[in-house]
Amino acid sequence: MPTTTHSPITTTRHGVIHNWSRTLIPTTKDAPTDAESPSHRLLARAGFIRRVTAGVYDYLPLAWRTLTKVSAIVREEMDAAGASELFMPVLVPMEFYEGTRRHEAYGDLLFKLEDRKGVKTALGPTHEETITELVKGSVSSYKSLPLNLYQIQTKFRDEARPRAGLLRCREFIMKDAYSFHVNVEGKGGLNDAYDAMYRAYTNIFTRCGLDFTAVEAESGPIGGSASHEFMVNCEAGEDTILTCPASGYAANVEKCETGPRPSDLMSAPAGELHEVHTPNLPGIEQVGEFMKVKPRNMLKTIVFKASGNQSIKWVLATVRGDHDVNEGKVKSASGCTIELAPEKEAIAAGFAIGYVSPMTLKGRTDTLLLIDPDAAPVSEKPCFWATGSDKKDHHVKYFNWKRDVGEAVLNDPTKAKVADVRNAIEGDPSPKVPGSKLVAKRGIEVGHIFKLGTKYSEAMDFRILNEKQERQAVIMGCYGIGVSRTMAACVEMSHDENGIKWPLPIAPYHVIITPMSVDPTSAAMKAACELSGALSRAGFDVLVDDRDERPGVKFKDADLIGIPIRLTIGDKALAENAVEFKLRSDANSKGDLVKIDAVVSKCLSVANG
Amino acid sequence: MPTTTHSPITTTRHGVIHNWSRTLIPTTKDAPTDAESPSHRLLARAGFIRRVTAGVYDYLPLAWRTLTKVSAIVREEMDAAGASELFMPVLVPMEFYEGTRRHEAYGDLLFKLEDRKGVKTALGPTHEETITELVKGSVSSYKSLPLNLYQIQTKFRDEARPRAGLLRCREFIMKDAYSFHVNVEGKGGLNDAYDAMYRAYTNIFTRCGLDFTAVEAESGPIGGSASHEFMVNCEAGEDTILTCPASGYAANVEKCETGPRPSDLMSAPAGELHEVHTPNLPGIEQVGEFMKVKPRNMLKTIVFKASGNQSIKWVLATVRGDHDVNEGKVKSASGCTIELAPEKEAIAAGFAIGYVSPMTLKGRTDTLLLIDPDAAPVSEKPCFWATGSDKKDHHVKYFNWKRDVGEAVLNDPTKAKVADVRNAIEGDPSPKVPGSKLVAKRGIEVGHIFKLGTKYSEAMDFRILNEKQERQAVIMGCYGIGVSRTMAACVEMSHDENGIKWPLPIAPYHVIITPMSVDPTSAAMKAACELSGALSRAGFDVLVDDRDERPGVKFKDADLIGIPIRLTIGDKALAENAVEFKLRSDANSKGDLVKIDAVVSKCLSVANG
Repeated sequence: MPTTTHSPITTTRHGVIHNWSRTLIPTTKDAPTDAESPSHRLLARAGFIRRVTAGVYDYLPLAWRTLTKVSAIVREEMDAAGASELFMPVLVPMEFYEGTRRHEAYGDLLFKLEDRKGVKTALGPTHEETITELVKGSVSSYKSLPLNLYQIQTKFRDEARPRAGLLRCREFIMKDAYSFHVNVEGKGGLNDAYDAMYRAYTNIFTRCGLDFTAVEAESGPIGGSASHEFMVNCEAGEDTILTCPASGYAANVEKCETGPRPSDLMSAPAGELHEVHTPNLPGIEQVGEFMKVKPRNMLKTIVFKASGNQSIKWVLATVRGDHDVNEGKVKSASGCTIELAPEKEAIAAGFAIGYVSPMTLKGRTDTLLLIDPDAAPVSEKPCFWATGSDKKDHHVKYFNWKRDVGEAVLNDPTKAKVADVRNAIEGDPSPKVPGSKLVAKRGIEVGHIFKLGTKYSEAMDFRILNEKQERQAVIMGCYGIGVSRTMAACVEMSHDENGIKWPLPIAPYHVIITPMSVDPTSAAMKAACELSGALSRAGFDVLVDDRDERPGVKFKDADLIGIPIRLTIGDKALAENAVEFKLRSDANSKGDLVKIDAVVSKCLSVANG
Repeated sequence: MPTTTHSPITTTRHGVIHNWSRTLIPTTKDAPTDAESPSHRLLARAGFIRRVTAGVYDYLPLAWRTLTKVSAIVREEMDAAGASELFMPVLVPMEFYEGTRRHEAYGDLLFKLEDRKGVKTALGPTHEETITELVKGSVSSYKSLPLNLYQIQTKFRDEARPRAGLLRCREFIMKDAYSFHVNVEGKGGLNDAYDAMYRAYTNIFTRCGLDFTAVEAESGPIGGSASHEFMVNCEAGEDTILTCPASGYAANVEKCETGPRPSDLMSAPAGELHEVHTPNLPGIEQVGEFMKVKPRNMLKTIVFKASGNQSIKWVLATVRGDHDVNEGKVKSASGCTIELAPEKEAIAAGFAIGYVSPMTLKGRTDTLLLIDPDAAPVSEKPCFWATGSDKKDHHVKYFNWKRDVGEAVLNDPTKAKVADVRNAIEGDPSPKVPGSKLVAKRGIEVGHIFKLGTKYSEAMDFRILNEKQERQAVIMGCYGIGVSRTMAACVEMSHDENGIKWPLPIAPYHVIITPMSVDPTSAAMKAACELSGALSRAGFDVLVDDRDERPGVKFKDADLIGIPIRLTIGDKALAENAVEFKLRSDANSKGDLVKIDAVVSKCLSVANG
């Protein structure tokens, strides 16, 4: 392996010097009308991206420079972790999905076409099937494993609602890696590779200059047994992360566990059960408003259809009205394979969908009720609960567990049990440190690693001979980074009202030089030429704003495109053999005068510190 | 601009060290059954590529390393020539073709799909329309020009008959550049950019280690006014290049001019005109065989429909039976816009298609006849000619120009003239140096540069304000390199019966080290480790064959994958502190013993010399 230089500046590589007028940086005052997120607005205004069609963008030279720097960091860390780069085609024959049925899971998200001969082909949304076909056709013995293969390539998903510029688009750039193993544990096993990828991802996002959190995640539709997401911390992010400050534990909202929450199913009622007619009210908010009850005093009960357990046909999950049922937790607490009950089937089975209450349990022998602790908390005062009345268009007030469901049922663990079945929220007890509470923050997912296990190898019959000369399914992992998304997430994380603030390692240029005169014979332009040469030899990428524009326009544009170091060359400073030195990150500074022969060392100290 | 180091070895960059067992190099004895060309056969056998579906390939790690090196050279030279890199999407909205109608010109070659909303979209075969839309939306003044923008990106063409592996496939990697100008001549004009691209292409293919010829070419369906192709010289190439050794002139067969060829329309007949019944004979070969006449003694006359000239509705071109009419030359000799005559229209106008002779000219006033000099050569003996008889299923023998077409017609330049209207062939007089003859060789096209002029800007209404504040159509050039094709062409050019012979600059690794023992504690493996470290520090990319395989298998594989420098480490040589040093290009050598501490300098002398 080559030793990689982690500083954004390598002293062995010369930086580039580009003139603004000879490249394409079309800054604009106005953002596209559909640009609602800061990264979309700023990347468009700063001339990084242009829309080609819904969710499809040109990456202009500035964007391409940043994407190239992100990709270079990704490559160095993937190579250092022992992965090999290759390149798979965009076109994926539909027949590759015969075993995995993923074309069904993807549905309309998959772009599909027929070629001139009528052969059905997809545009790859990821490449599990293609790489499994490749390795299956190339490797037959355990001796050739482990392998970790990756590519940086354009991916396609026909999103119903592409939005937020590069954050959710239909054509995007992704690094996807796939590892192949004989064992899960031990040297060369899946766990080793997974841990190496975890470290590589941590290095990658750190080197890109991102503020991020690695969180435990549900593995979702890709399948598999374990998974982490890498989230850029950012208030405008669409995902919620829960963290325990005391332990560093972090998980996304679907995955996050909570510490023990006490419960009491035997508390006394707050009043007589009382039915209310609640017609034409579409949701719990409206029902609560009509009944003058806060959602936190209501109970909602979700019906799941169960399989995999002969005696349980239905699983009910009851949570507080302001909480969300977590399907993964319902699945593990019930021990059943579950799916949200199809409405018709559930109604036919006697559930008044929309009005279901825990009372529906009475007399049923095929149903398990899971009660979230917060739906039956320990309380000094009697709890007031409103809930459905198991009858269309009707709810009840003053529901009480013991009186209305019955002690016998509540004490029979084959019929009802208390379990954590909701999404975690801020303030929940930490699952790791007693007394510590979970804190919520927002993030944007930029990386995701999965232990796939044998999901794909079983579906595609990829078996090899192991050391004992037995045929076994190959064990796989997969590891993705949204490369174009990382650029956008960085802008979401790091900008102000004037524009982008690039971290030095992935800035399109490290330094922008603005000479006050662009006449090639002027002292300012000559100094710009000398300085850019010296900076380039020190490894800095330099953009010289040689446009014949007013200084105000140039300064506004420099703020907008977000180059970290700005040098302004005017006659007054030049008379003192100095230039004005200003950091983009330091928005309020007027800039310092720095002697010309000290500029390179000043820039190096910024780069290295 | 950074100074670029043109040696394949940069002393400032560490090379990589990879172990064969930890990457994917699945060599095989047998080539795919459909592999008819050497590059297809060898790239498949050496584990560079695997077929995914017709004309669609995975690039495995070795191929990707070579493609990355080709791309790096392309980028350095494009950047040094002042071009800026960007990246456009694969998806091209069909509405982009409304102005240029190129979707009609491409026809079935264009991959097309409908998204979930029914919007029609193509997979980009090239990006003239996308980049014109982008620059049109970004640039409004001459001050922002010239611009030269390029990308390295995956392209799609739904070839009817993909073949020869990467030489003609349906998904491939291309570098495409587009330049934009206000003027053709002068500083910043199209001619400047075109010449810069010509030099950059010459640098690129030279630095890749290719033996190539730059040839004048017809601009073809992309349109425009001037064009050169860059051809890798290679006997198995599908294109014919004609060169004048005396002047260095080179052109492809469609474009190549010839020097003057004398002609004589007034020579005496060789016999009486004599009609022959020739039914059911599909082509000139069959007619000749039946009539016992060689094709070189036959005349064939092609009918074109003309437009752009009021008095000429049809243009006929008569060439010798063994020659091919050249449409471009017919066009310029006639001064008309022409197309091959639609059969029905031509028959309705009185042409006996398939049996047309120059005699059909008699009595027509709407037709111009162009006679290739070789169809009426200067000859001591009377020429014998067979030709059609302007009557279905009939030909004539003993055709004579003067007697059968008539002196008056042949002397009237509005009716008939002698002109070069055929493809050039080997042995033709050079157009550049009197007395020199054209020599034919075969080649594979890897690059093509075009002066487009205003073809696209007019069609897409891309106009800007010039220095005189007048709106004018922007002048464009476009410049392509087949990146994946370059790799395959290199294999066609440089291989033997045992495998590929990579030129050092684009070899996946510079050095392969084969230790005779792969036990990590063995002296051979320890020496391999030390040597690979030293070579890497000197900038060499090293592959260590650490597989537990017999030496014979390893040597065969090393030949097959074609790494330029091979070091074998065995106990006998090690006892003398030496290793066996062998060049792949030197197939017959047994290898030299080289002292271990002299290996790096020996490798450097190979790299630099």
